[in-house]
Amino acid sequence: MPDNTIVATPSAYTYPLLVKQLLLNSVSLHGDQEITYRGEMRYTFREFRQRVGKLASALTALGVRHGTTVAVMDWDSHRYLESYFGIPMMGATMFTVNVRLSPQQIAYTLNDAEAEVVLVHADFVPLLEQLKPELKTVRQIVVMADGQAVPATSLSFAGEYEALVGSASADFEFRDFDENTKAATFYTTGTTGDPKGVCYSHRQIVMHTLGTALSLTSQPEGQRLHREDVYMPITPMFHVLAWGVPYIAVLLGLRTVLPGRYVPDVLLKLKREEKVTFSHCVPTILQMLLQAPSGADQDLSGWKIIIGGSALSPALCRAAVERGIDVFAGYGMSETGPVVALAQLSAVDATSDLDEEVHLRCLTGRPVPLVDFRVVDADMNDVPRDGKTQGEIVLRAPFLTQGYFKKPEASEELWAGGYLHTQDVAVVRPDGFVQIVDRIKDVIKTGGEWVSSIEVEGLIGEVPGVQESAVVGVRDEKWGERPMAYVVCKPGVTVDVETIRHHLLGLVESKRISKYAVPDAERIVFVAEIPKTSVGKINKKLLRERTA
Amino acid sequence: MPDNTIVATPSAYTYPLLVKQLLLNSVSLHGDQEITYRGEMRYTFREFRQRVGKLASALTALGVRHGTTVAVMDWDSHRYLESYFGIPMMGATMFTVNVRLSPQQIAYTLNDAEAEVVLVHADFVPLLEQLKPELKTVRQIVVMADGQAVPATSLSFAGEYEALVGSASADFEFRDFDENTKAATFYTTGTTGDPKGVCYSHRQIVMHTLGTALSLTSQPEGQRLHREDVYMPITPMFHVLAWGVPYIAVLLGLRTVLPGRYVPDVLLKLKREEKVTFSHCVPTILQMLLQAPSGADQDLSGWKIIIGGSALSPALCRAAVERGIDVFAGYGMSETGPVVALAQLSAVDATSDLDEEVHLRCLTGRPVPLVDFRVVDADMNDVPRDGKTQGEIVLRAPFLTQGYFKKPEASEELWAGGYLHTQDVAVVRPDGFVQIVDRIKDVIKTGGEWVSSIEVEGLIGEVPGVQESAVVGVRDEKWGERPMAYVVCKPGVTVDVETIRHHLLGLVESKRISKYAVPDAERIVFVAEIPKTSVGKINKKLLRERTA
Repeated sequence: MPDNTIVATPSAYTYPLLVKQLLLNSVSLHGDQEITYRGEMRYTFREFRQRVGKLASALTALGVRHGTTVAVMDWDSHRYLESYFGIPMMGATMFTVNVRLSPQQIAYTLNDAEAEVVLVHADFVPLLEQLKPELKTVRQIVVMADGQAVPATSLSFAGEYEALVGSASADFEFRDFDENTKAATFYTTGTTGDPKGVCYSHRQIVMHTLGTALSLTSQPEGQRLHREDVYMPITPMFHVLAWGVPYIAVLLGLRTVLPGRYVPDVLLKLKREEKVTFSHCVPTILQMLLQAPSGADQDLSGWKIIIGGSALSPALCRAAVERGIDVFAGYGMSETGPVVALAQLSAVDATSDLDEEVHLRCLTGRPVPLVDFRVVDADMNDVPRDGKTQGEIVLRAPFLTQGYFKKPEASEELWAGGYLHTQDVAVVRPDGFVQIVDRIKDVIKTGGEWVSSIEVEGLIGEVPGVQESAVVGVRDEKWGERPMAYVVCKPGVTVDVETIRHHLLGLVESKRISKYAVPDAERIVFVAEIPKTSVGKINKKLLRERTA
Repeated sequence: MPDNTIVATPSAYTYPLLVKQLLLNSVSLHGDQEITYRGEMRYTFREFRQRVGKLASALTALGVRHGTTVAVMDWDSHRYLESYFGIPMMGATMFTVNVRLSPQQIAYTLNDAEAEVVLVHADFVPLLEQLKPELKTVRQIVVMADGQAVPATSLSFAGEYEALVGSASADFEFRDFDENTKAATFYTTGTTGDPKGVCYSHRQIVMHTLGTALSLTSQPEGQRLHREDVYMPITPMFHVLAWGVPYIAVLLGLRTVLPGRYVPDVLLKLKREEKVTFSHCVPTILQMLLQAPSGADQDLSGWKIIIGGSALSPALCRAAVERGIDVFAGYGMSETGPVVALAQLSAVDATSDLDEEVHLRCLTGRPVPLVDFRVVDADMNDVPRDGKTQGEIVLRAPFLTQGYFKKPEASEELWAGGYLHTQDVAVVRPDGFVQIVDRIKDVIKTGGEWVSSIEVEGLIGEVPGVQESAVVGVRDEKWGERPMAYVVCKPGVTVDVETIRHHLLGLVESKRISKYAVPDAERIVFVAEIPKTSVGKINKKLLRERTA
């Protein structure tokens, strides 16, 4: 292949894609725009830009250099937003510590990431003190007092964040460097093994910002973002870069509200007083907001909220829509930037049927620009877009993690065949909307078909007297696998195997499930209890082991 | 600086930014969306994608390979849109020939670009035949009959576009390659010298598409683009990639109307019948549309039109706004992608004063995302944002041309000091809106100040009896330069030097101009006529030569 690449004239600026460029317009066009921390402290984008320079100067004085990893342990704050920019812009790596992990796991991640400096909120000082003996690379700790008394501690601090930043010079020269430089890192926890380090480069953050922003902004009406929205994250800033939305907010110069620790009453007050119009959160937080007594009479209309992290249930979605919230699902994982799909409705989706509208808002969504979003069978062929045939979601995009830190085998498994494997099993509707039906390890492959364990559980749940069920695949010589159902009956009620089979077989005729999905009579077992994981999910791994 | 770049696991897809990725969503989500040529021929994005494959197969059969330059001479058509994708996607370079240049210039550009294949519309066959003897690299010509008889010619054709594409295979494998591969090239003509070749890489086209799209879509209301707009270009597709908007239209899956040769009645009919909502054109075309008798009663409301190429005058803007057109200025040059600024209004700009609104819509605009847009003095210091102090617009962006083809000196001059020099002189308002006041070579540098020649001409024009004037700089030992005014009086009227000076000096007090801008008495000269260029602009180069 002959070379046909463009040769730049020596003086030309080749423009590496760097996080600092996301700040260009927000300062030149929105310099007076406001950022507020809990509605208590306020400053402008112009001051924000100066503080980003001050932070870099202060960190330099602490020995932070190009390539140093700086860990942050904080609630959602202006300090975190300053770190999102200042740390990567100086060529260092921002490590957003998941403060909800166990102390052992946090110590593991700090060591694995080779963090040298930790910026820690006063609330997490006892936690950090507890794990300090295990830390191998941390040499400086900066405390973020946040206007409260710092707990008595044996930790020694290089200084207090505000004092250090306040006295540092704003004139830090942010130089150019390779756009593939590691800008941010954090850890993802699976059901087994140590947390795995995921990282993103400057180029990847810029591309994720542009792609996701374009999907959000190009929506004709509803579920859209525009330059006059007021943004408040309600997904922790330590969680996959708060889904990348803070970078979008700064690029577009949005008024930004950083709510600190999530307290429903405070969030609702900020929504009201700061006139917040755009947020994102997990279903649990949405539920808390809807149920908070202090917000029962509050007008929530015009609040656009992306829901991710776990599936948005129709009941919760409906409750939100009835309160006027323009709620819709987003899809992604720690490894994917994260946003790869959004359930934005289009004019052709317009419906006067609330049930149908709720159904659409709860779907996994449609891919955002530049994402090569495929649902494939085991041979990597695209499944038909029939809304029925299941396959795994595999991806290519300019912002997917290029592997796990120091985990070559897991990295190769993630990228088998050159596509990122999400391990989510989904169907594709003819209109391109994707709906996840299961995790791949829970799907039952029987007679050449993929059966969603979650789907079968839902249908068994329709049988009167059934309280709960769990369906897993068991090995079968003839069919490869067959579904095995563990069923818990309601107290004092008895259900028999044939009643369940009769119900399921009836659904085969109406094509709600395939006949392969109906468990054989000997594979429906009544139990007193179904084993759960620490976060309350059905422990299918354990069930499969027991069955085998 | 220690290396802190991310190392991808071997199987990871590193995702080079390529034109083919702009097609991903339009096929997967908008496969049924329609593209129409003049309202006569229609097909879907799904068919479009197939024809892009067929075009690549057909060109491969003609010997086109990675690195081959394929020239296109056509009106705005589906064939052009197929070329925008098919030619770059196969690793070849699309050369958009400016069919308005002189035959000699066209021959020069075809030779300079080393075009091997030409796709030519029947209308341009006589032109191509005329310059054929001079062509050194062209070896294949494909005629685009476009449903009309091809003129008798001595040219021999490799085939007819529809016949070749129709019979070719849609299954062309578009491979990955370096994102810095040359995707498109075309020529820019200055007032002197040969046309200069400008080119853009795949990465640059992708970045321009994202940046401009995000500026257009993130606008709260008015002057905005969304996924349900209907797009019709009215800037020729051979002119700086039709300002890059066709790539945006395909990325967002917009219904697209390609109008063929620009005939006002046809454009107005397409606007009406195809319900066009988004276009872009030069002021002359807008004027033609407003004045076309066939459209006098036509409802033009809701038509968003970006105006570029030359300044949008308040009178024309007002006429358009009064007809309901949501018209606004854009700024860019052949060398800049092209879009670097747009005059989109924001809520804070909202005004009930039509004059003020028209004034804002006619400004040069505010920078689009990722553009480092500076207005600087001769020492590259930013001028104050006072709406008065003049400086040159210099730029950095991820989509600026990296130099002129085979013109190392001109390329270095363009990029002197690492910023692209536009040679446009502008002021910056406190709100970030930029307004161009002159070309740098016409600005008069006197007593340490920059004086806009156009501004002084406008003020002299206010003197009763003055028909026209031209102001140029002349060397001056003490002041560096001084303004020299050539004035034409209205027929039968005499104006004297002191009247002009008295008027201008009066404006110094009200701060409309600086005292340095007032020509000395001996430098105001009355003439019978002012020399003009072939396109009707004042020939300041000639005036400066005469004065010297």
